[in-house]
Amino acid sequence: MAKRGLFITFEGSEGSGKSTQSKLLCRYLRQRGQPVIFLREPGSTPIGEKIRKILLDKQNGRMTPEAEMLLYMAARSQLVAQMIQPALNKGLIVVCDRFLDSTRAYQGFGLGMDMRLINSLGAFAARGTIPDLTIYIDLEPKKGLNTRLRDKDRIESRSLAYHVKVRRGYLALAKQEPKRIRVVKQQKDIAATQEIIREIVQKELR
Amino acid sequence: MAKRGLFITFEGSEGSGKSTQSKLLCRYLRQRGQPVIFLREPGSTPIGEKIRKILLDKQNGRMTPEAEMLLYMAARSQLVAQMIQPALNKGLIVVCDRFLDSTRAYQGFGLGMDMRLINSLGAFAARGTIPDLTIYIDLEPKKGLNTRLRDKDRIESRSLAYHVKVRRGYLALAKQEPKRIRVVKQQKDIAATQEIIREIVQKELR
Repeated sequence: MAKRGLFITFEGSEGSGKSTQSKLLCRYLRQRGQPVIFLREPGSTPIGEKIRKILLDKQNGRMTPEAEMLLYMAARSQLVAQMIQPALNKGLIVVCDRFLDSTRAYQGFGLGMDMRLINSLGAFAARGTIPDLTIYIDLEPKKGLNTRLRDKDRIESRSLAYHVKVRRGYLALAKQEPKRIRVVKQQKDIAATQEIIREIVQKELR
Repeated sequence: MAKRGLFITFEGSEGSGKSTQSKLLCRYLRQRGQPVIFLREPGSTPIGEKIRKILLDKQNGRMTPEAEMLLYMAARSQLVAQMIQPALNKGLIVVCDRFLDSTRAYQGFGLGMDMRLINSLGAFAARGTIPDLTIYIDLEPKKGLNTRLRDKDRIESRSLAYHVKVRRGYLALAKQEPKRIRVVKQQKDIAATQEIIREIVQKELR
């Protein structure tokens, strides 16, 4: 376990550009000769992608908060065992679009689910794997939701009030764990946001 | 909540005939003028049936025990909220093919998963709903597995040793809760087994 890699997660509200930013970071790290694997959650395993489909399908509008949370945890468990842990053990940098903090923000703060349950279940599903660094890209939900006018999925379709709670949740989490979770305000252009992220990651790699 | 119905679950090892028996019981109760709803787990809701497909698909051989357990719990949560609780509140008899005891037996005893975790997660997923009566149809796993020579699903394909552990688990659960869980030995013909089950249920209905 000597050459354990680095586990970086991206978090953010809808439309924050975290998927774009995480992919740009991967490209940058690869150019610097770093071995990187990019994953997204839920998904990135055959089982996880099937679970993702159920979670985001707007036809599943009657899904209970409990079922939703358990499905995210199931996909996470599969991803950690099948992809994240093996990659970290090989010494790779793992960049993951969303992880347990999403459940804390969306189901915990957003839907009011018991945070202790989320944390203990999260530790079980992730087999204790915790990100070394989490980049939270912050912007006002109003702006983020406007960037995607159509084709909103089941979670994106929730009310603005819900997304405001989610954002407050993220900021509260960052306050609780300032060393791990770094708040990056979304800048006017993609390159400027990416620049801030690269600086944070570079310091972590030194 | 005065006219809460009756919640009857069926449990059993593979090939025990519990699906047949539970359907026969439903038909019998309907003939007696009782309002009955038949459900199966995982499944019986659109979301649950999608989860069932993932769980039983043999292509998903790399599924972790954690993901497996969480998927069962997700399907259960959906079934309780969407079907079981509303039916019980209307005063119906709910007959369900499998419920939380299956997770205790298959994932707890069979796969060695922490029973306290299963129980607390089960209470969360089922919103505290506990069967009034559970019929466990018992037979030796060797016999049960032989009755289905082909088309075994992902769980049925597990070793005989696994199914022996599952059976021991069921018998241990029945010893812990003898009032709720009744052990019915599989008889030589379907009608004889059904007769025993009807007697048990009739006493419960009085």
